[in-house]
Formats: sequence, C-alpha cells, structure tokens
Amino acid sequence: MSFAERLPAYLNRVERALDECLPAATCNPESLHAAMRYAVLGGGKRLRPLLVYATGETLNLKPEQLDAAAVAVEMIHAYSLVHDDLPAMDDDDLRRGRPTCHKAYGEATAILAGDALQALAFRVLACDPQISASDRQRRAMIHLLADACGSLGMAGGQAIDLAATGTQLSLAQVEEMHRLKTGALIRASVLMAGFAATLSDARHEALSQYGSAIGLAFQIQDDILDEEGETETLGKTKGKDRHHDKPNYPAVAGLSEAKARSRSLADEALACLEPFGKAANPLRWVADYVVQRVS
Amino acid sequence: MSFAERLPAYLNRVERALDECLPAATCNPESLHAAMRYAVLGGGKRLRPLLVYATGETLNLKPEQLDAAAVAVEMIHAYSLVHDDLPAMDDDDLRRGRPTCHKAYGEATAILAGDALQALAFRVLACDPQISASDRQRRAMIHLLADACGSLGMAGGQAIDLAATGTQLSLAQVEEMHRLKTGALIRASVLMAGFAATLSDARHEALSQYGSAIGLAFQIQDDILDEEGETETLGKTKGKDRHHDKPNYPAVAGLSEAKARSRSLADEALACLEPFGKAANPLRWVADYVVQRVS
Repeated sequence: MSFAERLPAYLNRVERALDECLPAATCNPESLHAAMRYAVLGGGKRLRPLLVYATGETLNLKPEQLDAAAVAVEMIHAYSLVHDDLPAMDDDDLRRGRPTCHKAYGEATAILAGDALQALAFRVLACDPQISASDRQRRAMIHLLADACGSLGMAGGQAIDLAATGTQLSLAQVEEMHRLKTGALIRASVLMAGFAATLSDARHEALSQYGSAIGLAFQIQDDILDEEGETETLGKTKGKDRHHDKPNYPAVAGLSEAKARSRSLADEALACLEPFGKAANPLRWVADYVVQRVS
Repeated sequence: MSFAERLPAYLNRVERALDECLPAATCNPESLHAAMRYAVLGGGKRLRPLLVYATGETLNLKPEQLDAAAVAVEMIHAYSLVHDDLPAMDDDDLRRGRPTCHKAYGEATAILAGDALQALAFRVLACDPQISASDRQRRAMIHLLADACGSLGMAGGQAIDLAATGTQLSLAQVEEMHRLKTGALIRASVLMAGFAATLSDARHEALSQYGSAIGLAFQIQDDILDEEGETETLGKTKGKDRHHDKPNYPAVAGLSEAKARSRSLADEALACLEPFGKAANPLRWVADYVVQRVS
C-alpha cells in the first residue's frame, strides 16, 4: 500500500484531531469558537499535516507521535490565512471555496480567531496527552514552530510581501520572500516530525534541505496556479498577485522559467532523500505532488 | 530594602531583557521589527513582569530564573494592546501617550507585529538560554501562557467585550469578561514564576487565587480610571468605555460599589498570602499598588 493510498486515512485522522483540539462552537464565546472552527475545519489540502505524517513514516514513527505536530502546523497555517485575507492585508473574499473568515464572522472576530488559533497551536504542543514526546522533544518542536511563524519566518515573509506590492523585486528577493512566507512552515512540518525521532545531524540536515526545497517549490507552484489556474478549482480568487500588483515568481522570471525552477527544486528535494532509501517514498510522493498539483 | 525600592532595578532589568529578545530594527523586514519594538519598548507599567519578579522573591528564586517568563507575559500583553487598538476592534489612536502602533506603522504591519510578538513570547519560553528552568518547567509555563492568552482566556475576553458593546451585562457577566480579558494573563504572571519553583498544591492554589483576585481588581480599577482619570495621566484616551457604549464595572454597579469591590478583592488577595509569611511582602506591595494606582 502506497502513501497515496493511505492519504484518505491521514486526512480523516488530522480532521478528527483538529476537531477534537478545537473548543466546541457552543462554548463561550460562541462566535469566536465558531470562527476558529470555520477557519480550520472542512477544507484545505492539509499539505503540512501530510508532510508531518510522511516524515513520520520515513522515520518509522507511529501516527500517535505525530498528531500534535500535525494539528499545530495546520492551526498556524489556518490562522495565517485568516489574517492574510483581512481587508488591511490582501483583502480577499474567497478562501477554500467559501467566504473568508472576516466575511463570514466580521473583522474583529477574524483577528481574534487567528490570534487564538496561534495560542492553541502552542498549547497542543505543550500539553496534548496523546503524544509520547518527551518534554525535551516538545520544547524543540515549540522552538522550531515559533521560529517558523515569527518575524524571521512566516509573519516576516508576509510583511515583505505587503511591502513589495507595486515594486520590482529581483528573483533572489522573491525567493527569499517565499522562503519566509511559505517555506519556513513547510520546512518546520518536516523537522517537527524529525524531533519526534532521534536523528543524526546529517539526517536532520537532509530533512531540513528537503523541507526548504519543497517549501519554495510549493510557493512557486502557487504563483504558477495564480496565473494559470481557475478560480473554481483553486477555491480562491485567481490572478490575485497581478490584481494587487504583487511581484511573484512567474511575473519576475516568466512562466516557463518558473515551471523549470519548481521542477528542479523537486528534484533537489528528492536527492536529499537518498540516505533514507525506500522508507522515504512518502516524502517522494509529496515532492511530486507539490509540483504537479492543479489546486 | 523594600520591593518598592527595588522597582527601578526590576524595570531596568525587564526593559533590557525585552530589548535583547527583540530583533534589531535594522533586521529585515525592518518595518515589522521597528513596529514590534515600538509596541513593546519604552512605556507601560510592566505590571505583569513585576508580578513575575515579586512572586519570584516570595519563592526565593533568582531573577535570572524569571526573565524569560517576565519577557513572555509582557510580549503577550503588548501584542494584545496592538490588536485591541486596531480600527476593527477598539479603534484607538493613543496608547502609552503615543500614537497606537497602527497609527505609527499602518494596519497591516500592526497586525503582523502582534502576530510575531505572540510567536516570540513562546519562543523565549522554549529556548531562552538564560533561564535555568527544566524542560518540564518550561513546558508548564508554555501550557499556562497559551491557556491564558487563547480563546478561553484573553482573546476570548476581548471577543466577549466586543460583543457586549451596546448591550446590558449583569455584574457577573462583567466580572467574567474581566477575568478572561485581563485576569487570566495577570494570574498567569504569578503562576509562571510559581512553575520555576517546586510548590505544594496548597501554595500553588493560594498563588492562583491571589492572581485571580488582583487580576479582577486591576481591571475594575482600570474601569474606574476610565471614568475618573485624566487622559494625560493615563496615556490613553479616557472615557473610552462610555464613548463606545461598553459595559464596564462602574457603569453596571456604580462608582462607589466599584471602588469597594476593588478594595475587597485586594484584601482577598492579601489573605491568600498568609501562608507565605513576610516573604510575600513584594506581592502585598503589588496588591496595594493595583488598587491605589492613578494611571
């Protein structure tokens, strides 16, 4: 049975874990909890949790050891989408084929829902009773996640993205922005699973490079789909970057160069997996998925 | 030498620790880091860090064991002020006698600065090399802080506050809102220091009740100052609650009842400190300060 065949089971697993970690919508304050659940449940590719589980399979870990990391990265991702969609940021109405969180629940509740999801992500890592990680491993995961989503990671990348609107960036600057905005959390998804195992420095470094390469490849593919995809398939507004006059990879390098770069990054990622042998097939599947996806 | 006489040294200490933990304003993305530093440095009563150090003195801990907790609670507090002041929330222009963060840096950067400060607070607890806390103690602090600032704590309290605008709340509902919005983080400031020590359950519970009582007393005093204080002394706009038609303690119970409640909560807090003897004088000083302050 291949990783692709186990996908539906993993998607169910993370959906259930997310549902269990989120307070019920009947819990006071109800609108805040409803907004948090709306932002997290019932949609999304779940790429980051899948990366956690794929890395876990590669390292021969049990899924129970990985659920907290899978939940935490997805909550951080969901909060970032809620805040990025706000009127003061990208001002978007459509996300995962539905109204964005602030369209559905109002701007104030959306800001607070994002804030509370970030706190919940760290809470899950600190206290989830299911995970068998030691205090030391949990601490390493929290440290990594905080770095990946802070001002030198995801939030910093979004700040660079906003500042770049209407300006010209070099290709190196676009790559740096993508590495922070999207790449840092994708790399963290791989390495958090790594912290649940005991890894040699060389293997840790190999996974880090794998995560960096597919993180950048993912965002370049996102840029390509923003140009070429269809709003209906994407579940979000297409052509956003062009509309907002934001520099993205195809805009700076051209579409065919963007596709070539995305493919070569996937190959680079695959090369990092050699030391892991066949055990890394799940991560190989993810690397191919990242550059072949159409939504 | 009393705690009051050691205050300037503690204020210097936390200011230096905050400065060291924040990335330099010359670090890319510069505007984001400048906004984070603006939101955190050079102002504020530092009540929460002072509570950390006062609890530490009571428990005979060294300040080095407490710096990370002091920095983390103040970063969470600062991020909450930045987000609460946003146009979609309380829409405030003045904070700590200066323009609010979004007035100085724009709304998008203010949202991201708040987000990044929250991540940085958890990062400091996870990895600050100065603190001598064990992995287990750090994990307990992170768990507590995440609870205190999440949807069942501070963010939840702010959601209730926003939803209450223009409505009538009972006194019990106002107290519940205050306990979440302000009280949870103040209580956490006391208990995080407690986690750096080894406490009996009874002492832990006594500190928890102390923290809850002064947390509520602090917010009632805030409401009183919002009615009675002067904008210049407060460093923020006075009469905000009335202007926004927000229910607060004096509005629901009357000013003299509010003052009596604030004083009786301080007395309740003082009673919790009896088991600690004279060692708890720093916490006694804080309890008196909370209800006697004029800004």
